[in-house]
Amino acid sequence: MPDPSSAVLAVLGAGLVDPASPVARADDAGLTRGDGCFEGCRIVMDADGRATVAKLDAHLARMTRSAAALDIGFDAEAWRDLVAVAVAEWTRTGGGEAAMKLLLSRGPASTGEPTGLAWIVPVTAETVALRQNGLKVITLTRGLGSDAFAQSPWLLGGVKTLSYAINMAAQREAERLGADDVIFVSADGIVLEAPTGTVVWSHGRTLHTTPTGDTGILPGTTQQLMFEHAGAAGWQVRETTATVDELHAADVVWVISSVRGPVDVVELDGKSRERRPDIDAEIRRLSGF
Amino acid sequence: MPDPSSAVLAVLGAGLVDPASPVARADDAGLTRGDGCFEGCRIVMDADGRATVAKLDAHLARMTRSAAALDIGFDAEAWRDLVAVAVAEWTRTGGGEAAMKLLLSRGPASTGEPTGLAWIVPVTAETVALRQNGLKVITLTRGLGSDAFAQSPWLLGGVKTLSYAINMAAQREAERLGADDVIFVSADGIVLEAPTGTVVWSHGRTLHTTPTGDTGILPGTTQQLMFEHAGAAGWQVRETTATVDELHAADVVWVISSVRGPVDVVELDGKSRERRPDIDAEIRRLSGF
Repeated sequence: MPDPSSAVLAVLGAGLVDPASPVARADDAGLTRGDGCFEGCRIVMDADGRATVAKLDAHLARMTRSAAALDIGFDAEAWRDLVAVAVAEWTRTGGGEAAMKLLLSRGPASTGEPTGLAWIVPVTAETVALRQNGLKVITLTRGLGSDAFAQSPWLLGGVKTLSYAINMAAQREAERLGADDVIFVSADGIVLEAPTGTVVWSHGRTLHTTPTGDTGILPGTTQQLMFEHAGAAGWQVRETTATVDELHAADVVWVISSVRGPVDVVELDGKSRERRPDIDAEIRRLSGF
Repeated sequence: MPDPSSAVLAVLGAGLVDPASPVARADDAGLTRGDGCFEGCRIVMDADGRATVAKLDAHLARMTRSAAALDIGFDAEAWRDLVAVAVAEWTRTGGGEAAMKLLLSRGPASTGEPTGLAWIVPVTAETVALRQNGLKVITLTRGLGSDAFAQSPWLLGGVKTLSYAINMAAQREAERLGADDVIFVSADGIVLEAPTGTVVWSHGRTLHTTPTGDTGILPGTTQQLMFEHAGAAGWQVRETTATVDELHAADVVWVISSVRGPVDVVELDGKSRERRPDIDAEIRRLSGF
């Protein structure tokens, strides 16, 4: 668990705040209803020793879409300023690779003012170990059909909401079974996404990922960057629906998040997978890791 | 919007706290992940002018089950004490009919200590008006099959989590369409529950509600009390799956929550329903309203 003294916290409208001090009221809809959205970003140090946010534009663009879907105001310029304040403080206090969470909630019922936070903590030793060792993954049903989100905007498909209780419960289920992470599967057997990441798999020189849209899965910012760079490097890139059997048949399967990067799956539903360090290294590099 | 000066807030481990002061840290899993559970209770004044919580035992029992499903510690006696402190303060500051939210989150990642709150605000004028006027309701798909929760405990069926973003989005959709509330329907067309309430309908002297369990819906504390009292008063009570067409054919349809009580549906998917004040008054009375 990160020590709050090694965290940086900036609050929209207030600037830097002691990370150990409470920031959300009891009637904040983020707390009472998971009613809001977030982004998880990676901070790296540049050549001049300054902390910088990887693909910040893509994160702010996705957060703009999430906020719009939730009918919560989002001033991208104010958020850019908030991020700048938090990241400058991260540099000042020593820097290093880090995870930054941007969190927007509808705010307290008693004020109607949205709550906005930028929260930075060092990348954990667990993240570093998983990058090295690869992931043991189990598949779990998400209960919804792969077209459940068509014409049902209230189901918030593609919206990175604060309502992640099921995602967290699925990760606890994985832990209980000795695994590291989960790949969700639709009720009709289609591979969806991980609780906090995108799924990509390769066959030969083709990369695949599940289509967004009717499936309700989140568009992955790191997956999009990967596909862009891999496409330029001669890979074919495809949006494809696949079953778990088809995933077993892939050369490499990755679970991808902005902070952890693409991590190859070394065990899927108890079945070991041969690691392919050649392919894996190229894809990680193309993804900025 | 309630004025925080007319609210009472008690925090587990801290007692009474200024309701306008923030209580959750930036890394509280309740805020960042909707990872926790809650209860919404009704406070009424007893004959001696003391505030008292309706069916508190049933709420604490359900919260115990929710917390256990989420692997969060829950000390029912400590919560009983917390409620007593909050309710005594409500009496002291004037009392009156009120809504009390009990909220438990997994707490900050940096401390690992759960966050517990009791929050009391007066019943709103909107609630009073809806009780009087009845509800205009639309049905919306919940995207999941009516047996989606069988053998999938990570989907948190029957757990009253803080992850209510979809429930809130569905209620905004209703508002957009000029309605007051929503009844969720499963992907296979079965009536489920409301975003913040249970659905009950009557045919003659029989009351029906959707079964819990595989449907994932919450067991309703007010519905349970209603069925118990109605059963003793000569009604038949049944757990029945029904389609929306079958709901249209019912004598009365109610959406029920602990604070609002049973409120009859006066319009369902744009179709007016005849109000049945005789049946409705009996059922409200049997439910403690």
